Amino acid sequence: MTRRVLLTVEYDGTAYSGWQRQLNGLAVQQVLEEALTDACGETIRVTGASRTDAGVHALGQRAHFDTASAIPPEKYPFVLNTRLPADVRVHAGREVPQGFHARFLSCGKMYTYRILNNRHGSALMRNRCVHVPVPLDDGPMRLALDTLLGTHDFAAFQAAGGTAKTTVREIRAAHLEREGELLTLTVEGNAFLYNMVRIIAGTLIEIGHHKRGEDAFLRALDTKDRLALGVTAPPHGLELTRVDYPELAFVDPEALRWHE
Amino acid sequence: MTRRVLLTVEYDGTAYSGWQRQLNGLAVQQVLEEALTDACGETIRVTGASRTDAGVHALGQRAHFDTASAIPPEKYPFVLNTRLPADVRVHAGREVPQGFHARFLSCGKMYTYRILNNRHGSALMRNRCVHVPVPLDDGPMRLALDTLLGTHDFAAFQAAGGTAKTTVREIRAAHLEREGELLTLTVEGNAFLYNMVRIIAGTLIEIGHHKRGEDAFLRALDTKDRLALGVTAPPHGLELTRVDYPELAFVDPEALRWHE
Repeated sequence: MTRRVLLTVEYDGTAYSGWQRQLNGLAVQQVLEEALTDACGETIRVTGASRTDAGVHALGQRAHFDTASAIPPEKYPFVLNTRLPADVRVHAGREVPQGFHARFLSCGKMYTYRILNNRHGSALMRNRCVHVPVPLDDGPMRLALDTLLGTHDFAAFQAAGGTAKTTVREIRAAHLEREGELLTLTVEGNAFLYNMVRIIAGTLIEIGHHKRGEDAFLRALDTKDRLALGVTAPPHGLELTRVDYPELAFVDPEALRWHE
Repeated sequence: MTRRVLLTVEYDGTAYSGWQRQLNGLAVQQVLEEALTDACGETIRVTGASRTDAGVHALGQRAHFDTASAIPPEKYPFVLNTRLPADVRVHAGREVPQGFHARFLSCGKMYTYRILNNRHGSALMRNRCVHVPVPLDDGPMRLALDTLLGTHDFAAFQAAGGTAKTTVREIRAAHLEREGELLTLTVEGNAFLYNMVRIIAGTLIEIGHHKRGEDAFLRALDTKDRLALGVTAPPHGLELTRVDYPELAFVDPEALRWHE
């Protein structure tokens, strides 16, 4: 008998080539699969909710796997953390139905993007924030963020290489907080296109710098033109903070698949 | 003509053997002196306000040096940050009188000690916080902190190897804040004995764990017995946050030396 287990995983993306296994570089998926394979005594493959890029962090990545192991699901944090490098931690494990899928059944994600807005950067935060030495004007940044809210066609908001069938997404919340030199952007939505949050962050920085107007997002939604937006902000400012699932995914996931 | 310059320096202590040059390992002092020597075109030696241990961080270390270089003092952050590794940043430079001394004229320091109080630690904060998996009771910890306030003989609060002439110190503020899983201890005083903040943090953790009573500090002040206190908490939770000088140090430092 095999069971499907869902993990909650935190990682510092600095040393990794991203979530997904690649030909070059070490992926978070790989170190997690190696720890699981060692713990379970069988080859384990995991499926993550989000394929984060090299340098991107996660506080609450989710990943599922199937195993015949008798390890109680809630014990996986203990079993794995002794086998994982210190820059990857598993915080929770729970059994889920066979039809559960960490990526396809996710109904919401929250990302955080951190901007250190001071003169000389930071030694202590260097891998967690992007450094912007030009003073940023938060007012227009916040006004622009408000224009993202709701359901729109975000076709302009994706990097080349995005393979989404539809580019319509719903942004449910978007906030910018300032604590001294640190600007923290949080964005919640039903799903995100490839590089979407980094494009939003890069555009916001240009708006805060008065290089683009607070209508930049509106114009990009209207024209669907990637050039109406700013550069893609660097990966190390980004963190996948949370992945949400509907309660039904834990009870009767097949019922949800109907709606795909 | 030489001038004396005071720098404000931030560093991530993870990769260093501490502030002070040693036979083994790379010291922050050494990388700073190498950057200065390269920038100034002459051998530079710096004097730090605090000799932080291996693994200890600094947000606001201070260090002075003498140079014949014509570099304007306020330009040192720009000149040095291009030469320093990313885990050391210089945030400010100012000229000070010849009699100024970064260590001897300091009249106050603030330290921060971070405790991550959750089950499985943190990948992202692993080098900044000590992980305590046992739930800590903040109430007695705060009551104990209050007993440190004021001027006392802190003879019990130092590691073997402390060489201070007097062990009387004044603690001006001591706070413990909880934000979710993160407990942040801040302590301000006129000066600190060797390992004093780490001994306070280690004792507080034992108080929060009900292994020692909230009167532990009072008893140690009374008996001057190191054994009345807890273990020395690990270095990576500690940060030298700020170093203060009296205004007179920047105007007429010789007047202050009278009082040594």
